[in-house]
Amino acid sequence: MGKKVIITGVPGVGKTTVVNEALKKLKAEGIEYQSINFGTFMFDVAKAEGVVKDRDQMRTLDRQVQKRLQQHAAQAVAKIQGNVLIDTHASVKTPKGYLAGLPEWVLREIMPDTIVLVETDDDQILMRRLTDETRSRDKEGSRAIAEHQQFNRAIAASYAMLTGCTIKIIVNADFLLDRGAEDMAAVLR
Amino acid sequence: MGKKVIITGVPGVGKTTVVNEALKKLKAEGIEYQSINFGTFMFDVAKAEGVVKDRDQMRTLDRQVQKRLQQHAAQAVAKIQGNVLIDTHASVKTPKGYLAGLPEWVLREIMPDTIVLVETDDDQILMRRLTDETRSRDKEGSRAIAEHQQFNRAIAASYAMLTGCTIKIIVNADFLLDRGAEDMAAVLR
Amino acid sequence: MGKKVIITGVPGVGKTTVVNEALKKLKAEGIEYQSINFGTFMFDVAKAEGVVKDRDQMRTLDRQVQKRLQQHAAQAVAKIQGNVLIDTHASVKTPKGYLAGLPEWVLREIMPDTIVLVETDDDQILMRRLTDETRSRDKEGSRAIAEHQQFNRAIAASYAMLTGCTIKIIVNADFLLDRGAEDMAAVLR
Repeated sequence: MGKKVIITGVPGVGKTTVVNEALKKLKAEGIEYQSINFGTFMFDVAKAEGVVKDRDQMRTLDRQVQKRLQQHAAQAVAKIQGNVLIDTHASVKTPKGYLAGLPEWVLREIMPDTIVLVETDDDQILMRRLTDETRSRDKEGSRAIAEHQQFNRAIAASYAMLTGCTIKIIVNADFLLDRGAEDMAAVLR
Repeated sequence: MGKKVIITGVPGVGKTTVVNEALKKLKAEGIEYQSINFGTFMFDVAKAEGVVKDRDQMRTLDRQVQKRLQQHAAQAVAKIQGNVLIDTHASVKTPKGYLAGLPEWVLREIMPDTIVLVETDDDQILMRRLTDETRSRDKEGSRAIAEHQQFNRAIAASYAMLTGCTIKIIVNADFLLDRGAEDMAAVLR
Repeated sequence: MGKKVIITGVPGVGKTTVVNEALKKLKAEGIEYQSINFGTFMFDVAKAEGVVKDRDQMRTLDRQVQKRLQQHAAQAVAKIQGNVLIDTHASVKTPKGYLAGLPEWVLREIMPDTIVLVETDDDQILMRRLTDETRSRDKEGSRAIAEHQQFNRAIAASYAMLTGCTIKIIVNADFLLDRGAEDMAAVLR
């Protein structure tokens, strides 16, 4: 079996950029990872089970149905051979509050080796969100971003208690992408 | 089945005031909640089971007995039809340290939809405690209050991991009660 | 059965000093504790099971083997009669990230009464590490130390959720050892 590494980070932190740079480095060394997005993966499971037709329906599912889909998706992820990198969120900010991205029934199936928190200064995240015109993101101030990052650390700690995985904080600071990518590569290596 | 919302907050944060204002708003909209205090509910269970006669005895119970009572109370709460609002603590500060207000065996029974953390600036809480002469509260400085609120966020994160509930932080700031009550109403709606 | 108290703290915080002072006070009062180091205890279990010959091999064990050893060690700790003080870490900082010192399968066996976090100002810890020439410790700045202490509080909160134990923060500040030792004694009493 390969490694299972979960990558998380608040919107705008630049998670994908860091991951792609790290994967380039690793490819040059002959190390391969299959990348999957947990949300997309879950949607595929839901479509295959005939539960939904389009992605918008995913948000309106009954809580029990959503739970079952999460668990099925996690079971499928657990069966993948070789190294897997799973892109998801430590927690999702919803109108009703923070929602665990990796609740117990998902963690017990995947049993990851490491969960990475990609972080940076809340003010840098704010600026990245404001200048990223390709996506419409929810507006929130830097204090709210700091709160979300803090909550992610706390919930990640509970993930570590349950699974025995390591929690790695990787900083993706302005002008220091290569540093973040190198740290990420070191985790995936 | 209705919603199950758990309301928490350190002593003096003004939890009850916010809840009452929110429930007034909701009543005007035709939305009803049954409010229960988890401590009182547990005491009623203990009395019914013949374990205690008065409330003071609750503090001196054996750990295993307390655990069983907590679980029985949680099972009874889970059976209540319609919307329920459960007033309790995310954690309780005791001489031996912080104690989980919602340990695993309580959470697995109730499986709440949302846990609300009513918070405000630690200095405002300090002042509210000092001017509230109706209750004798333990004296502690604002740094200790900040620590307690921080611990509550951390333990709430672990509650979210276990149950899949959302964690909503609602601020009850001086002069902004209506804002807090509106945020609370939005969670309960 | 006696009490089971787990003592944790980042390297250099002076955990052992505080514990020894507290145990002296308690001995004078006729209260005895058996002190064990969880890492050493686990190593003894591993040797007895023929899994390793020397301590260095402990770091290179397969994850499943390590998990089994941790659980066996925890089961043995749980059987000890009388008061037990267990010296370990809330989390360990490794190159792959923070690792839970007390994962679920350890906690469910030991079910501690209290977990103590010995803490102090990150700058004081930094200075203690720099001036302690008897041990070679990993070099890290005071910000990294603060992050580690914060992570320990978060993971301790999840330990409290799972076990119902209390989490006591005890400060071991410069020039105030006796204060820390007295607080520790009060927890152990």
